Amino acid sequence: MIFNVKSLDFYAGRPVAIIDEKISKKLNVRVNRRAIIKNLRNNKSIIAVVDIAYCKNKNSCLFGNQKIVLSKEIFDILDIKDKDKVEILPALEPMSINYIRERMEGKKLPMEKINAIINDIVSNNLTESEVAYFLSANYFLDKSEGIDKEYVLQLTKALINTGSKLDLNHKFVLDKHSIGGIAGNRTTPLVVSIVTAATDILEMDAVFPKTSSKAITSAAGTVDTLETVTKIELDDKEIKKILEKAHAFLIWNGSINLSPGDDKIINVEKIVSINPVSQLVASIMSKKVAASSTHLLVDISYGESAKVDKEGALELKELFEFVAKKFNIKLKVVFTDGSQPVGNGIGPVLEMRDLLAVLTRQKNRPMDLEDKSLFLAGQLLELTGKIPKNKGFNYAKVILNSGLALKKFIEIIEAQNNKKINLNELEKKLVLDKSKKDIISNKDGIIKKIDNKGINLLARIAGSPMDLKAGIYLWKHKGQKIKKGEKIFTIFTESKNNLTNAVKLYKEIRPIEIN
Amino acid sequence: MIFNVKSLDFYAGRPVAIIDEKISKKLNVRVNRRAIIKNLRNNKSIIAVVDIAYCKNKNSCLFGNQKIVLSKEIFDILDIKDKDKVEILPALEPMSINYIRERMEGKKLPMEKINAIINDIVSNNLTESEVAYFLSANYFLDKSEGIDKEYVLQLTKALINTGSKLDLNHKFVLDKHSIGGIAGNRTTPLVVSIVTAATDILEMDAVFPKTSSKAITSAAGTVDTLETVTKIELDDKEIKKILEKAHAFLIWNGSINLSPGDDKIINVEKIVSINPVSQLVASIMSKKVAASSTHLLVDISYGESAKVDKEGALELKELFEFVAKKFNIKLKVVFTDGSQPVGNGIGPVLEMRDLLAVLTRQKNRPMDLEDKSLFLAGQLLELTGKIPKNKGFNYAKVILNSGLALKKFIEIIEAQNNKKINLNELEKKLVLDKSKKDIISNKDGIIKKIDNKGINLLARIAGSPMDLKAGIYLWKHKGQKIKKGEKIFTIFTESKNNLTNAVKLYKEIRPIEIN
Repeated sequence: MIFNVKSLDFYAGRPVAIIDEKISKKLNVRVNRRAIIKNLRNNKSIIAVVDIAYCKNKNSCLFGNQKIVLSKEIFDILDIKDKDKVEILPALEPMSINYIRERMEGKKLPMEKINAIINDIVSNNLTESEVAYFLSANYFLDKSEGIDKEYVLQLTKALINTGSKLDLNHKFVLDKHSIGGIAGNRTTPLVVSIVTAATDILEMDAVFPKTSSKAITSAAGTVDTLETVTKIELDDKEIKKILEKAHAFLIWNGSINLSPGDDKIINVEKIVSINPVSQLVASIMSKKVAASSTHLLVDISYGESAKVDKEGALELKELFEFVAKKFNIKLKVVFTDGSQPVGNGIGPVLEMRDLLAVLTRQKNRPMDLEDKSLFLAGQLLELTGKIPKNKGFNYAKVILNSGLALKKFIEIIEAQNNKKINLNELEKKLVLDKSKKDIISNKDGIIKKIDNKGINLLARIAGSPMDLKAGIYLWKHKGQKIKKGEKIFTIFTESKNNLTNAVKLYKEIRPIEIN
Repeated sequence: MIFNVKSLDFYAGRPVAIIDEKISKKLNVRVNRRAIIKNLRNNKSIIAVVDIAYCKNKNSCLFGNQKIVLSKEIFDILDIKDKDKVEILPALEPMSINYIRERMEGKKLPMEKINAIINDIVSNNLTESEVAYFLSANYFLDKSEGIDKEYVLQLTKALINTGSKLDLNHKFVLDKHSIGGIAGNRTTPLVVSIVTAATDILEMDAVFPKTSSKAITSAAGTVDTLETVTKIELDDKEIKKILEKAHAFLIWNGSINLSPGDDKIINVEKIVSINPVSQLVASIMSKKVAASSTHLLVDISYGESAKVDKEGALELKELFEFVAKKFNIKLKVVFTDGSQPVGNGIGPVLEMRDLLAVLTRQKNRPMDLEDKSLFLAGQLLELTGKIPKNKGFNYAKVILNSGLALKKFIEIIEAQNNKKINLNELEKKLVLDKSKKDIISNKDGIIKKIDNKGINLLARIAGSPMDLKAGIYLWKHKGQKIKKGEKIFTIFTESKNNLTNAVKLYKEIRPIEIN
């Protein structure tokens, strides 16, 4: 059926077609199913998710005199201009649904079928629930049949095939990746700054192009934290310039299209917070391969409230090593303590303050965050072969103490912002929300447990990460003594309402135990 | 945040709130996630799925000067009137998502958690993808851990708890249920007519309240076929009257709210055509218990292109028997041939013609459909204990030959339409689409295979079930001889375009093999 369409400047976040009910009946498409939209002028077409409108009264209807409303995404992709006519057709089920079904039945999928699934995820040909079925299959088959290494390798390749590449011709293209769901834990900017300062001194042909994600279930991701001081969304040209200047960047992975399938998959995984091991490794490795990584440090935190236990950590390690070898990436997996948050601040501004405290060598800096970052930086330096075994930590510490890491960090954000940075001014901008509440211990004792999930949840209720100035400041860590009347932690938030909710939640879930 | 809202008479098929992007950021809700909408006048509230609109140009925006647009469903449920103000709040994840996660981890769920999941499905608190995760868990755990009978029982109870009940006080409340995905196979109206005619003669205190579903993946469901001659959507009062008059009805299960959770679940299952055994049995049994069934015949077709194989059929049988016993339902499971379509017509009008051919004892009636219906009717009659063992088939045949079954069928549709029916006029109305094509055999041979899925797909491409007059007429069945130049089947469809597509698909999938 052919229609005139008028742009309503309505972006839906994905290609959506709202169709009059009578037309949907003729086309035989239902809510949440799909239709092909084709611009008859240029023959461009796209598959859109369908919403159906049952307009009973023409005058008050959403549509006015229109029969279909297309979201602005469709106008953009199909380059629809005034007076263009579009055709709408029922979209047959993509073949990849059959492949998902085969995977659910436990069948081995050949490369072309895995490619088809990932392609359809990227092209929006599969709905969220279809992707959920695919991920469920990966999750449950990992558990019931054991991990199929070859499948993970194929999946990694399929993810790489859908994205762009960051072609870098350096002898050392470094990367690190942390897994664990640990609150705080903002080691990445420190590791990047320390390591890049070191590779500069060692005159290695090295770059550290670090892309990170935004928080989805946690209180802050690396880029949420960086957003408090720098631009994190940059285009291909800009990032190449930054790499030339600073030999490193710290940007949002959404800026570059390294593994678009993976980004969509993550959104569906987060719905129930599952992380099929096979999917996780394929996701991470596809981005690293696309970024031309040569040396990769993977930091897996395990423990009670971390995402993985010891067994899971060992399984991950083996799988990472297998895939890295196939792509000729030098990879080292290290295990770190995941039993509690790392650093004092949980929330973007609070975590940036922690980072700067470490970089500027303040007395009250969070030593756990510093030590972990030094350890990781040292391990990565040793992995390059340019620093001898067991010397990495100390080398990293020298760099940090010398102020070179701070200098490198400022160099990176100056390059990303394309202007000079004044440290004092930067620090002054890092203010916190004014509504705050100290949570006080009602007894003497020892901090026995700090639950990562609970702390993340508290910080989110306080407003993190959308409200950059909200969060939780931990005054104590696990194993430390606390006296009656001493502060356990402080909540920062925008509104009294949030504060009440956070305190209420704290009392319900008690994420911190004192004995 | 509080807003004035204006009704735009826009039904979306579920509660949808389209929210301006800036507001969505403040509320921290993303596309496809949820928000609570509350009418401040009466404090009614509902959880809605969120779409986000990024309006760049106010004048051409979907919203006009509005910040949120609510679908008409929300106006209806919250009884929103002119000048009412609504509050919109981010909805916390429902607790049931945690229970789904627990289920995915393989944990046993106590009754209250299963209830919470089903309640949230019914109340739209869970999105399609969350339901997909839940169903995946049921599906994969059935496979990897074996079926947990107690879980199925709990799930059945939870489904019953969410719906209404059909309180019937008869000694015999009969039902039958066919499983298998067999094309054609329209036995239900025949079984209901034969059995109810029989129980009338036997002066049993019996009713046969049969509810059926519409086709989703097949070419026609029982009610799609019935829709060609009768109303199939009736309210509670009407169906009680019909039962009093005719002692049976044949209606759409959407008319009565017996297990609303189940209806929503089926929609998500159909996405990938999975049927977790535990879910399937709980779905069916919950409806039967809610309908006060006392005697239930379950017909499981298995075979190459049916939904289940022999092993699956045996597993289903055991589970049905277990659950039926707990609810005091006399149940019998019979196995029937699922290796090919049953009857000649595939598609609503074609199947209704088959039914009438059997009821009116026409010479060219489909004998496979007749024999299967007589077998099932006989088995159900024997299950009541009022007909001796091995006498059911013959008893059913006597009823059919006598014309009593036809009389009963007309009685039922007269009661449902609330007017007299003239059989001749009825038959005249059953016309087929005018675009048609005979598919001719190009060799002598024997029909070796007729694939149910392929035939269903062909009929759907022809326009079934939306176009009641479309479909496939099979001139031959499995095992029959065919000569070169003889018709294998005929396609009926509304448009030449459909015809071309159907012929093209036929050549691709070759659902019929001749040797």
